[in-house]
Amino acid sequence: MKNLVVAQSGGPTVAINATLAGIVERAITSGMIDKIYGAKHGIKGLLDDQVVEIGSRLTHPDELYRLTHTPSSALGSCRFKLGTPEEKPEQYEAIFRCLRKYDIGYVIYIGGNDSMDTVEKLSEYAKIHAPDIAVMGAPKTIDNDLCGMDHSPGFLSAAKYVATTFAELSCDCNVYDVPSVTIVEVMGRNAGWLTATSVLAREKPGDAPHLIYLPEVPFEREKFVADVKEKMQTHRAVIVAISEGIHNPDGSYVSAGFGVTQTDAFGHQALTGANRVLEHIVRTEIGCKCRAIELSLMQRCAAHLASETDLAESRILGEIALDRAIHGESGLIAVLNRVSEDPYRIAFGTVPASEVANRERKVPRDWINEAGNDVTEPMLHYLRPLMGEREVARPGHLSLI
Amino acid sequence: MKNLVVAQSGGPTVAINATLAGIVERAITSGMIDKIYGAKHGIKGLLDDQVVEIGSRLTHPDELYRLTHTPSSALGSCRFKLGTPEEKPEQYEAIFRCLRKYDIGYVIYIGGNDSMDTVEKLSEYAKIHAPDIAVMGAPKTIDNDLCGMDHSPGFLSAAKYVATTFAELSCDCNVYDVPSVTIVEVMGRNAGWLTATSVLAREKPGDAPHLIYLPEVPFEREKFVADVKEKMQTHRAVIVAISEGIHNPDGSYVSAGFGVTQTDAFGHQALTGANRVLEHIVRTEIGCKCRAIELSLMQRCAAHLASETDLAESRILGEIALDRAIHGESGLIAVLNRVSEDPYRIAFGTVPASEVANRERKVPRDWINEAGNDVTEPMLHYLRPLMGEREVARPGHLSLI
Repeated sequence: MKNLVVAQSGGPTVAINATLAGIVERAITSGMIDKIYGAKHGIKGLLDDQVVEIGSRLTHPDELYRLTHTPSSALGSCRFKLGTPEEKPEQYEAIFRCLRKYDIGYVIYIGGNDSMDTVEKLSEYAKIHAPDIAVMGAPKTIDNDLCGMDHSPGFLSAAKYVATTFAELSCDCNVYDVPSVTIVEVMGRNAGWLTATSVLAREKPGDAPHLIYLPEVPFEREKFVADVKEKMQTHRAVIVAISEGIHNPDGSYVSAGFGVTQTDAFGHQALTGANRVLEHIVRTEIGCKCRAIELSLMQRCAAHLASETDLAESRILGEIALDRAIHGESGLIAVLNRVSEDPYRIAFGTVPASEVANRERKVPRDWINEAGNDVTEPMLHYLRPLMGEREVARPGHLSLI
Repeated sequence: MKNLVVAQSGGPTVAINATLAGIVERAITSGMIDKIYGAKHGIKGLLDDQVVEIGSRLTHPDELYRLTHTPSSALGSCRFKLGTPEEKPEQYEAIFRCLRKYDIGYVIYIGGNDSMDTVEKLSEYAKIHAPDIAVMGAPKTIDNDLCGMDHSPGFLSAAKYVATTFAELSCDCNVYDVPSVTIVEVMGRNAGWLTATSVLAREKPGDAPHLIYLPEVPFEREKFVADVKEKMQTHRAVIVAISEGIHNPDGSYVSAGFGVTQTDAFGHQALTGANRVLEHIVRTEIGCKCRAIELSLMQRCAAHLASETDLAESRILGEIALDRAIHGESGLIAVLNRVSEDPYRIAFGTVPASEVANRERKVPRDWINEAGNDVTEPMLHYLRPLMGEREVARPGHLSLI
């Protein structure tokens, strides 16, 4: 019997440990795995031989339950870009030396599109140099920007947080009798999926959010001011949803107008404060009360609002990734796809890592309205079955005035 | 039979509508009230004759349930400081003309210490000019800074949000293997009660938050830097809780070092960004990864995390305020007090509005440690029975590394 090592990578989610729990569960049920290891901080754990035996700590269903309901990455995470075998042969030698040391037959890497690049590289290398080692991927990201699947594990829980929070903020923002604008910034560098889920806060037409700006459409300052002024004609408290990554027509981030930008290992700019730039615009050009809110880390770690659907799907994807590895596959990513619209049904399967690695699925242009300040019916058609009515914890929303 | 008018004032909470529901419930059960009115946007509704009949909309228990679980103020709110009868006789004439128009016998005002100033002024005026009109107060504030009572309605729900969020953020912040500091700003201009509830996120010594700064102790920049450096010796991810109103030794707000300050009708400065000032300090003086988080409006409107204890207490206080008015009292505030420590028990009662109006209860100095960067055992002794274990929605918190 061979051993298994699991690692987690990229930004954490509420559901990423559910996937880990699924992998452990399948390892236990398979009878084909001897020891279960975890690599600390993603691929760095294999590079630096930071590997811990975790199987003996997760033998009781209670512990798997606790793991499933722990937000963030229980094994730690990293943002580390592996070179190619030609560029960085020493990285591959270190990783496979570590895998041999622990007699690993199965590597499962849980992560987003950058992490699936690691799965692709390692599995390609293994095919030639270590064909007895299977390398498989299990997806996760709150951004929902992974290709090859209907939606990403972790997205539904973040969406539940976003929709619930917009519904509650709407109650709060309407309390005073003075006109106000509230700018709420949601995570999403290049894809607006999570920001779009704010639309699920609406119970009837005219409900918040009143304007939604996604990074897929260039943000125009003058149009924004005109949009807000128009909404203020009919709403005392205008609530605006924006993605952190909205950018100007010249391609620069709106947030770049404010403070310093930093760059991570994948060359992504660490963004801050698009909401504060827009707050400044509203205060100076409209002159009304304005508040900037950032949903910050809460949107990706609010385990108390985890979607049970999300946790279940994430667990199953982990089980599938290991199951297919045991059956001799390598270089694949476990996915789920929509096989029927009405009734909504999904099916689980796999795709080659190359279909997911380094790609980003953006919101289609016609899922955003012509004016670029709201989403359209196809987006609702996509989102609604994912987030059943019971998933959004809407407040009472009883106004007496 | 006389009529009743209710109004809500000050910053909204998750529980302020539970108090309104309690008042309506007692009005229904008393058999002594004819019509139930709501004044829109607090005292402004009585000044401007913006009064709506609400009793006929709240006759079904389902509607009272919905109202109880709606965050923010269903009647709208205001921040409006009433003059004295000598300064502004026209205000009193307008208000009592409005009360006469609707044949009001009972006025219940739900609000914080500023709002209780309104209760005191109106009840004093009524004693002389309209002795058949009773004016009573029901308390609310997430700040927990009201005198004359053990704790303030609205505080427990906000505390549940704060403690839960710190526990979840702790999971998220520990994910990477680089040193980091996270500064989390909690509401509280002059009193640190709500920030102190972050301590309830701790399950064992050493858990986050690692440093807690309240406005009751002057904030010293050099000491802060030394505190953070010391915690970084033992914690990779240092999490710091601060009140929005922490201030420098010279009395100026720490947030005043950043951007514009605005002033509201009560002369309170609208604060923004103490967390961003501290983020800047950490980045420049320590040079590590640092993130500033503001719990913003979410901490006062997260109805999905409402404390059921809080909702029940808030409802009962509303019932008592009206009940005592029906029995001939005026100028009182409904309160709850701790009558036994072990077992923890509370009793409901009333105090004169003057004991609550315009006063602020701050955290006692010895409930904060000597160094001014944490709370002490008396604070835990006070908080623990308010927030039973079941109230804090702690995540699984299972770390495998």
